[in-house]
Amino acid sequence: MKVFTSRELSNLDKNFRRNLINQLPGHKPANLIGTISADEKTNVAIFASVHHLGANPPLMGFNMRPVSVERHTYENIIRKECFTINHVTTEIYEQAHQTAARYPKEQSEFEAAGLHEFYGQAVDAPYVAESPVKIGLKLKEVHDIKANNTKLIVGEVVEIILNDETMDEEGNLDFHLLNLVTVTGLDTYHSSKSLKRLPL
Amino acid sequence: MKVFTSRELSNLDKNFRRNLINQLPGHKPANLIGTISADEKTNVAIFASVHHLGANPPLMGFNMRPVSVERHTYENIIRKECFTINHVTTEIYEQAHQTAARYPKEQSEFEAAGLHEFYGQAVDAPYVAESPVKIGLKLKEVHDIKANNTKLIVGEVVEIILNDETMDEEGNLDFHLLNLVTVTGLDTYHSSKSLKRLPL
Repeated sequence: MKVFTSRELSNLDKNFRRNLINQLPGHKPANLIGTISADEKTNVAIFASVHHLGANPPLMGFNMRPVSVERHTYENIIRKECFTINHVTTEIYEQAHQTAARYPKEQSEFEAAGLHEFYGQAVDAPYVAESPVKIGLKLKEVHDIKANNTKLIVGEVVEIILNDETMDEEGNLDFHLLNLVTVTGLDTYHSSKSLKRLPL
Repeated sequence: MKVFTSRELSNLDKNFRRNLINQLPGHKPANLIGTISADEKTNVAIFASVHHLGANPPLMGFNMRPVSVERHTYENIIRKECFTINHVTTEIYEQAHQTAARYPKEQSEFEAAGLHEFYGQAVDAPYVAESPVKIGLKLKEVHDIKANNTKLIVGEVVEIILNDETMDEEGNLDFHLLNLVTVTGLDTYHSSKSLKRLPL
């Protein structure tokens, strides 16, 4: 058994710490977040912190460091007060991963990663055409995490675009058909296999 | 293609909405959160909203509705200012799921679910002995999500307890060996299979 104390954690090699701590949450969902700038340049970037916040009203959150590669996403969300969340499948995860690279503000990550824009009715932000679950959100709240100067972005779901065959008549999604990936750490992707539905 | 507009989402049948919206984030990590009350009663409950917030300082967050079954966890965290996060594997997910049921405050969910307590050095809260990744955290911040009266709990990692063979010399965890589950919606569990590690 290996035990890391608080003191040991403080003194870890920087790369070792980054690896270990980023892998601590286990399997994270992989999502592409789409936005558009004031001058109509589109942006898409991969995130692994999207989470459910509530069903009524339908709310989702994600966390970000509003600097470096994620800055364009943050600026666009604050300006336009909306964004899209798009699920990443086994078919597009390698393209999705490329959106984490640094691109100049003038270049759209859609183009750089070979992904395509798709537009719905409810939000001024691009969906990812290749994603089988497209979620449009209006910005509701921004919380400052004081401990490390990151942000929690809270959005209300105002549009959902799904492939018909991926949802049944009770509102359940077919995760086998969807073939979504999870990510561990910063760079390792996984597919999933259903085990069991348990009684509530 | 099925499109849900904001108006359609507002008018959905309650169960349909709960199913759909809870499944929107895709695969969520499954974690048991362990706490202890002022009168030393232990509590453990399953959550699907744990997420990474930062590597230095090492921070993790999760979301909760501080009522009903989650109330004991919330009260204990506020009182003791610490909690544990324990990963759920294919071996214990059925037991872990049982912790979501309502138990009287006097009964420990450890006992009810057939899980065992384990104590480290850093936090006044029980780990789950059966979990291969045990994380001890001190409470750092609580944020109120105004849109639906839920809470974001932010903790700093002050202890990590791992099985030796599950981590390599660079701080990478062996997710194949760990056999962690993910959860979709409220009740469906999945295992994972590694696809690829991509260059950063």
